[in-house]
Amino acid sequence: MTKETQKISQKVIPRLSRYYRILFEYSGRDMISSKELSDITGYTAAQVRKDLAYFGQFGCPGRGYNTVDLKNSIRKILGLDRTWNVALIGVGNLGMALLGYKGFKEQGFEIVAAFDTDPGKVGSSINNVEVFQTEKMCRVMTQKKIDIAVLTVPREAAQGMAEEAIRCGAKAILNFAPINLKLPDSVKVRNIDMSIEIENLSFLISRQ
Amino acid sequence: MTKETQKISQKVIPRLSRYYRILFEYSGRDMISSKELSDITGYTAAQVRKDLAYFGQFGCPGRGYNTVDLKNSIRKILGLDRTWNVALIGVGNLGMALLGYKGFKEQGFEIVAAFDTDPGKVGSSINNVEVFQTEKMCRVMTQKKIDIAVLTVPREAAQGMAEEAIRCGAKAILNFAPINLKLPDSVKVRNIDMSIEIENLSFLISRQ
Repeated sequence: MTKETQKISQKVIPRLSRYYRILFEYSGRDMISSKELSDITGYTAAQVRKDLAYFGQFGCPGRGYNTVDLKNSIRKILGLDRTWNVALIGVGNLGMALLGYKGFKEQGFEIVAAFDTDPGKVGSSINNVEVFQTEKMCRVMTQKKIDIAVLTVPREAAQGMAEEAIRCGAKAILNFAPINLKLPDSVKVRNIDMSIEIENLSFLISRQ
Repeated sequence: MTKETQKISQKVIPRLSRYYRILFEYSGRDMISSKELSDITGYTAAQVRKDLAYFGQFGCPGRGYNTVDLKNSIRKILGLDRTWNVALIGVGNLGMALLGYKGFKEQGFEIVAAFDTDPGKVGSSINNVEVFQTEKMCRVMTQKKIDIAVLTVPREAAQGMAEEAIRCGAKAILNFAPINLKLPDSVKVRNIDMSIEIENLSFLISRQ
């Protein structure tokens, strides 16, 4: 993993994900232009062209990009041409919601195991996913070849559980707990802090 | 709302939100330096100083920022010195999780009404929040002085429900549906697409 790759990922990759979604909406069409992608996303057309050129995708002047080719190409770039095994750590309200969330499965992210400390939840199955004791994390995660851990535990448990998931073989963590996890640089982490997004809105409407 | 303000909001505001969280973790301390904020967040110290200087916060060379002053100042900038009335639209798995999510309330975002089309849910109360028919949106939203709508409906219902929420007085929308809402520029929208975040991870670990 070069520094370059990490830098790209922060900004370009979420944009590629958006183009990918739009290509699904426009899958009846042969071609789509950078102008159209710009109108839908709000990014400039130059930005769209630059993002796609970066990965070797060049549209035809005046015609745009072939939708099927572009979709397949972005699928590969994003690593969506395979299935990823995901473990969910923390079966609270949010964890339960994610076990029922179709968006992950549609893109090849399959939750194949869940973990919780609550004896009332351990042993149960939610949407066909078994809930295991957190003590069994390493055994289950090795067996099920987990790539990514989704962390939906309370703030105070998050750092410990993240470390445990990494020790048990997870290569990446999607963290919903509102804390800054301190992990080795080799571990990939993305944070989803729902409060941060809503604070962006309160900032904007405060200024109206 | 100037273009300038909108531009700031995209990048600086999420960083301010992170500083704000860190200041809570360090609330026992008198001072915090840009170097410390840099170490925790991964942003450069120069970036931290620039972000804070932008809003008129200047640290003392060699000593840093007064934690209490800085916290209060960011609280005001983010519009967190007041309560915001929030409506939840769509009481599915994710909606239910958000009704139980403490992170919003802690920062002053109070969910005061929920809406759903399912007659089995309408009339019930979840975490003391009443679920109303979507047909009653305008009456309820006016009565409860809603500022922000949180949209947790299926993809195909999202555009229509967003338009209805705006018509009924919401000034901003936090959208969890994986689509690009088409709304007037005056409406503030933030999207949380959980799949986009996990795709960032699959991109990164594909390249390892």
